[in-house]
Amino acid sequence: METVTSPEDRSGSPPSDAVGLTRALIRCPSVTPAEGGALALIARVLGRAGFSVARPAFAEPGSPEVENLYARIGTGAPCLVFAGHTDVVPAGEGAWRHDPFAGAVEDGMLYGRGAVDMKGGLGCMLAAALAFLDRRGPDFPGSIAFLITGDEEGPAINGTVKLLAWARDRGERFDHCLLGEPTNPAALGEMIKIGRRGSLTGRLTVHGRQGHVAYPHKAENPIPGLLRLASALVAAPLDGGTRHFDASNLEFTTIDVGNPATNVIPASARATFNVRFNDDWTAETLGAEIRRRLEAAAGNAVRFTLDLQPSNSPAFLTRPDGFVDLVTAAIRAETGLTPVLSTTGGTSDARFIKDHCPVIEFGLVGETMHQVDECVAVADLERLAAIYGRVLDAYFPISS
Amino acid sequence: METVTSPEDRSGSPPSDAVGLTRALIRCPSVTPAEGGALALIARVLGRAGFSVARPAFAEPGSPEVENLYARIGTGAPCLVFAGHTDVVPAGEGAWRHDPFAGAVEDGMLYGRGAVDMKGGLGCMLAAALAFLDRRGPDFPGSIAFLITGDEEGPAINGTVKLLAWARDRGERFDHCLLGEPTNPAALGEMIKIGRRGSLTGRLTVHGRQGHVAYPHKAENPIPGLLRLASALVAAPLDGGTRHFDASNLEFTTIDVGNPATNVIPASARATFNVRFNDDWTAETLGAEIRRRLEAAAGNAVRFTLDLQPSNSPAFLTRPDGFVDLVTAAIRAETGLTPVLSTTGGTSDARFIKDHCPVIEFGLVGETMHQVDECVAVADLERLAAIYGRVLDAYFPISS
Ligand SMILES: [Zn+2]
Ligand SMILES: [Zn+2]
Repeated sequence: METVTSPEDRSGSPPSDAVGLTRALIRCPSVTPAEGGALALIARVLGRAGFSVARPAFAEPGSPEVENLYARIGTGAPCLVFAGHTDVVPAGEGAWRHDPFAGAVEDGMLYGRGAVDMKGGLGCMLAAALAFLDRRGPDFPGSIAFLITGDEEGPAINGTVKLLAWARDRGERFDHCLLGEPTNPAALGEMIKIGRRGSLTGRLTVHGRQGHVAYPHKAENPIPGLLRLASALVAAPLDGGTRHFDASNLEFTTIDVGNPATNVIPASARATFNVRFNDDWTAETLGAEIRRRLEAAAGNAVRFTLDLQPSNSPAFLTRPDGFVDLVTAAIRAETGLTPVLSTTGGTSDARFIKDHCPVIEFGLVGETMHQVDECVAVADLERLAAIYGRVLDAYFPISS
Repeated sequence: METVTSPEDRSGSPPSDAVGLTRALIRCPSVTPAEGGALALIARVLGRAGFSVARPAFAEPGSPEVENLYARIGTGAPCLVFAGHTDVVPAGEGAWRHDPFAGAVEDGMLYGRGAVDMKGGLGCMLAAALAFLDRRGPDFPGSIAFLITGDEEGPAINGTVKLLAWARDRGERFDHCLLGEPTNPAALGEMIKIGRRGSLTGRLTVHGRQGHVAYPHKAENPIPGLLRLASALVAAPLDGGTRHFDASNLEFTTIDVGNPATNVIPASARATFNVRFNDDWTAETLGAEIRRRLEAAAGNAVRFTLDLQPSNSPAFLTRPDGFVDLVTAAIRAETGLTPVLSTTGGTSDARFIKDHCPVIEFGLVGETMHQVDECVAVADLERLAAIYGRVLDAYFPISS
């Protein structure tokens, strides 16, 4: 891999535009849990702009120490928080068109790991905040904060959840949060996320009795029982969806018996499933419904155990209100699109932030995230920075 | 483990009775593929009794070399072959009442690995042959042969199948074979095996497309397809059994996806099944029927691959004839029981022998085979030796 000289090294000061900031961040190899220089770069950028910056690191037995960043300018309310993560998933096995940590631009596209998830989003937030402070100076009525973790793609143990508690302990209070995850399926402006489905993982074990395949009457094969129970769980939908949420969905992710002997009936069979559930359910009511369905299918014929993993990810919704309208208006002004208010997709750190203030998510186009040749249109970076700038202007109106 | 002194070491000559021979064989630690001294002992016993004895060893890349034994007394027809194996399965994890390789006797039971499978059977055959030769001398009208392998419990690659070919190449011809595997479920005399079901193993793979559980519409989970296909295979019986055979039976032995990530939909799912099939089927017709059932269940909705392993174990039947009657009469005379003529249970080396001469199986009570505390009643050893003796007397009548 070539040695990359960052723009900062050449000019002496970090870039302040969305494209330059995104390229500089991509050049920091911050694969979870490595900091890679990304948080240091953000600290320098925000420090020069007048933010007070803290870099708390958190650790816990069994998980790597993770660096995080909290910055704030202003002391009064309202406080608008930009949230995000600098860590990225690994480059992967495939061959990249461009070095995934070089930040190359070709034909209007900027390539690199994190281009859309979410160093691009961070670059746009930073650029918007710098431009806002250039326009308005430091004495606008309120505060802007940055809540940045290095552990979103990993176990998410030493990241946002601890950073939020750390800030609360220091008396920090937030009014609204904008999380910059890539929310748009195909075009910038299509989709805001105003909530997320919950996630519940279960492990199903069917118990039998080991024996020789030639003497099935002396054994009890657990596999037909597992087929019956698993089929029952996927046979009927859990619900039909709610006003703001799609139907809940259950997927089996693995079945493992691990019996290498083709002449042996195994003693047990295990399967794992994951449910993405809507606000019709809590983890508790959903777990009870799954257990009810399994018991109905099992009758007296199948002996099973169900282990529901503790769910740290309930379904939640940020009720559409003035802040959603404000962000929607900013998006419409830049893109001409009216974003749908969605709760689709996987979990994000919004599941932690929602306990501290209303949070909505809006960022780049996620199509290439986590893939080889992850890339973002340079024009999208400029438009997203402009959208975030409009959000700041509307959130801190001059008249107030 | 205590150092065991074999009876032979004390007396200077090997034992000649069924119990003594069985104990001496148990004291040879011949866990597959180790010879453990067991074949050497048999060679000495048979050599002293006037047999010519050969000890061919066979090897093949990828499998350990295995020692075998072939012995014969007499040159004329008819030739009755006693067949068996000296190798045993390991002692296993459990705690034994007595050292599994000591041959301890307690309360009329002889304990040890191989007591019933099948060092006991070998001890009875050897004792019966020695006693027959004592009674009749070496000039009886016909021949007695021993076909003993050290690779029945293992891969069975360098054992009976190669020993039979080796003997055929040397012009050896056999008229009937008695294989001494434990055939009786609970009491000596209950059951002769006159054939065996075939065995066919298949590997079923259902193909999908990997993705994130939160975006199931972008992925294709192979597990529901596998549930559907596997359920279809176990839904209806393959047949209702035939005159001499039970119904064919299919058991899934494992399902393995091997996906550790609870938020990832896997790319494929694999299952393995084994069918024990009767003489309604060949491996080819059975494979075609399984494929037909899978295709019917899959329709256009499930993409799958079926790999049928080469089956070296077709269903076969030794047509009940005079030899079966002769063995039945011997059993009835000693035990008062009329054995059922069965084709149940797993495969055995009879599947190889049947291509050379009619083969039937009769031995001890299999209840404790392969288990901790494998054991045999001393009285059963004496009665089985007497049964084998009656078979020899009837097979080589004095009048002829
Ligand atoms: Zn992300
Ligand atoms: Zn055996």
